[in-house]
Amino acid sequence: MRDTMAAPGRPRDPQVDQRIARAALDVFGDGGWAGFSVESVARRAGVGKASVYLRWSGKEALLADALTTGLVRISDVDTGTLHGDLVELARQMLQLYAGPASRAALRLALEAATIPGVAEPYEAMRTGQVTAARAIVRRGIGRGELPAEASVTLLLETLAGGAMMHALSTPPDRRAAAAADTAGHARRLVDFLLHAVTARAENQA
Amino acid sequence: MRDTMAAPGRPRDPQVDQRIARAALDVFGDGGWAGFSVESVARRAGVGKASVYLRWSGKEALLADALTTGLVRISDVDTGTLHGDLVELARQMLQLYAGPASRAALRLALEAATIPGVAEPYEAMRTGQVTAARAIVRRGIGRGELPAEASVTLLLETLAGGAMMHALSTPPDRRAAAAADTAGHARRLVDFLLHAVTARAENQA
Repeated sequence: MRDTMAAPGRPRDPQVDQRIARAALDVFGDGGWAGFSVESVARRAGVGKASVYLRWSGKEALLADALTTGLVRISDVDTGTLHGDLVELARQMLQLYAGPASRAALRLALEAATIPGVAEPYEAMRTGQVTAARAIVRRGIGRGELPAEASVTLLLETLAGGAMMHALSTPPDRRAAAAADTAGHARRLVDFLLHAVTARAENQA
Repeated sequence: MRDTMAAPGRPRDPQVDQRIARAALDVFGDGGWAGFSVESVARRAGVGKASVYLRWSGKEALLADALTTGLVRISDVDTGTLHGDLVELARQMLQLYAGPASRAALRLALEAATIPGVAEPYEAMRTGQVTAARAIVRRGIGRGELPAEASVTLLLETLAGGAMMHALSTPPDRRAAAAADTAGHARRLVDFLLHAVTARAENQA
């Protein structure tokens, strides 16, 4: 792939863009912001530093860009049922945490707020995801699938947190099996949590 | 407190031990393993590097020691009811994540497995905590507070994950309020999740 590397006067190669963004997530996942530099990303991607600076103004812009393209997008989820939407949402999160960007995603949750130039795009992405997830639950309430007084926050925090904790608790030798069963675990997790919300309604009825 | 600093021929001062361990958690919380050194910990604690080496053989031993003394101990929880035990467990986790060791605790969940000399004591502590938490739930099953077929793993992953996600989602300007309400949120979280488990039993009955 070296012959497609960007050079002055030649058009930018989107495959190189992707390789650099992928390397940025890997380097950040390994060492966090303390170990993040344009040089270490260029080395991991197998390109020169100039190829990185041709595309991004610096390491903040590089990481901000990599995270917005490499992480979960939940705004598009709309299967028609609350159960279906939540299973798809959980499956995407489990897949992210089981996949190659896993450590970067977990670190960002922890560090993003303290990194200048990254805090703002990360917060915007996170706010967008929370808004989209809350809209999923509100649609379910609108369709009568959940009681109006259901705690949207508790449901989403236990869903997202349960998916994250499942990934953190999976020992290295079981990670391949967990990655192959994200759909199954997503269903078990959502079935478990939806019982919590609907049971409360039945008790109050 | 500088006059109590350890020096050759004088007995070790436990307050200095604690100050260094506290500084170790702070430095690790800020920069992770990539930014962790005996020098940065000594500087944060306001002692000389020699005072650290007098107590610990190196940075691995220092962090391993700091984490086993500074983090949650759940083995002692036994209030007599499952609800009481889980609320106390959730409260301790929420307090840890809301307190000064918050970032160190979150980072350890992510990084500990990759740090030589720290991976083993962390894994031992984590295994001990998981065993103690599972014992809490099994006692509840034994007392008939939960059905025998309850998913212990899903209950504990959503409990621990829900507490962690609550901490990660709390914006800086609401952290003081969240820290003051850990007992209240622990109760809401446990009430929510116990509905999930007992509802399933009622549906199957």
